Amino acid sequence: MAKMYDISMLIHPDMQVYKNKDEKRPSFETTSDFQTGSAHETKIHMDAHTGTHIDAELHMVPNGRTIEAVGLEKLVRTCRVIDLTGVTGGITKADLEPHQPKAGEFLLFKTRNSFEEEFNFEFVYLAADGANYLADIGIAGVGVDGLGVERAQPDHETHVALLTKDIVIIEGLRLKDVSPGEYFMVALPLKMTGIDAAPARVVLFEGVGSLG
Amino acid sequence: MAKMYDISMLIHPDMQVYKNKDEKRPSFETTSDFQTGSAHETKIHMDAHTGTHIDAELHMVPNGRTIEAVGLEKLVRTCRVIDLTGVTGGITKADLEPHQPKAGEFLLFKTRNSFEEEFNFEFVYLAADGANYLADIGIAGVGVDGLGVERAQPDHETHVALLTKDIVIIEGLRLKDVSPGEYFMVALPLKMTGIDAAPARVVLFEGVGSLG
Repeated sequence: MAKMYDISMLIHPDMQVYKNKDEKRPSFETTSDFQTGSAHETKIHMDAHTGTHIDAELHMVPNGRTIEAVGLEKLVRTCRVIDLTGVTGGITKADLEPHQPKAGEFLLFKTRNSFEEEFNFEFVYLAADGANYLADIGIAGVGVDGLGVERAQPDHETHVALLTKDIVIIEGLRLKDVSPGEYFMVALPLKMTGIDAAPARVVLFEGVGSLG
Repeated sequence: MAKMYDISMLIHPDMQVYKNKDEKRPSFETTSDFQTGSAHETKIHMDAHTGTHIDAELHMVPNGRTIEAVGLEKLVRTCRVIDLTGVTGGITKADLEPHQPKAGEFLLFKTRNSFEEEFNFEFVYLAADGANYLADIGIAGVGVDGLGVERAQPDHETHVALLTKDIVIIEGLRLKDVSPGEYFMVALPLKMTGIDAAPARVVLFEGVGSLG
């Protein structure tokens, strides 16, 4: 089989969460065990934006489309990992231009975020001018290794520039072990409807021709 | 690209849940919206055994292994869908023998469950003698289209026969639109640790050679 990379974040109560907010920590509630019953069962409580997840337009746009609008045909496809590990702060148009993004491409940004397991308030994000540049080119989607594609933007320009153009956003990837280059991506969010995001497991297969 | 089938159950508050128990219904809690903030956010509350999911040994075996023991190498592989739509009640050794299960195979059982969106207390399940037959052959895994691989077994013989032999169990598949035959399966549970199951999204690709 083609070599596979799991680029998803582990979900557990002590994982990193956005701005270290306690109310965003996932929790696992044991609802039955072998003292109280004959089976062990767990209830999961987690923010839809926990760990690796896919944003819906509704997340940042009033009356925006909900998560079922991001069909699997947009998430199971070729993609390209680009090396942005030298960037601090916002990823700008100038950082992206050397990589020559093309219309229809799905780009995954490998940054220093992938090497950090603690939440970093100064995480690398996609600056508004970078987002507008990619939206104008007409990329199909972007995957980032921070828990947000943006930060410190009161009007959420980066999210809005992408989501209103139907550009997919995957957040919370782990790309430490993945070299830049082309892959076949299978990004599978839980099959949910009506909400602003869905947690996902994402894998990459080496070799663009896989499944082609 | 190879034709893809999404064989996952839609997760929403009105979906079917085991024995129609209200405490097993998933719920979506809006934690921020555009009246209270500048983003729309949702907290998910769901049983780990909701909809399409993968069981860990701990679910039915005291001190059993937890969900991270089911590695992706067991879930991303070829599989075979077999037609058991004629079966009512328990799937027995006699029902399985004509399909000639082989060691190392991952079998998905297409039954009348796949055609029902309401919980049916008489859902088709894998009888203990069928489970023992498959465990003795040494299959790698089984996927069922009921919310349980068993029912009405106080000692959970079916679960125990499979899980203690490291045979993967996927429950809650939707196989209505899938013809019997061989496929490449990508079954991706959320990347969780320490608990008795994980919800999953599962897709099949036509053509066994895909990704091979």
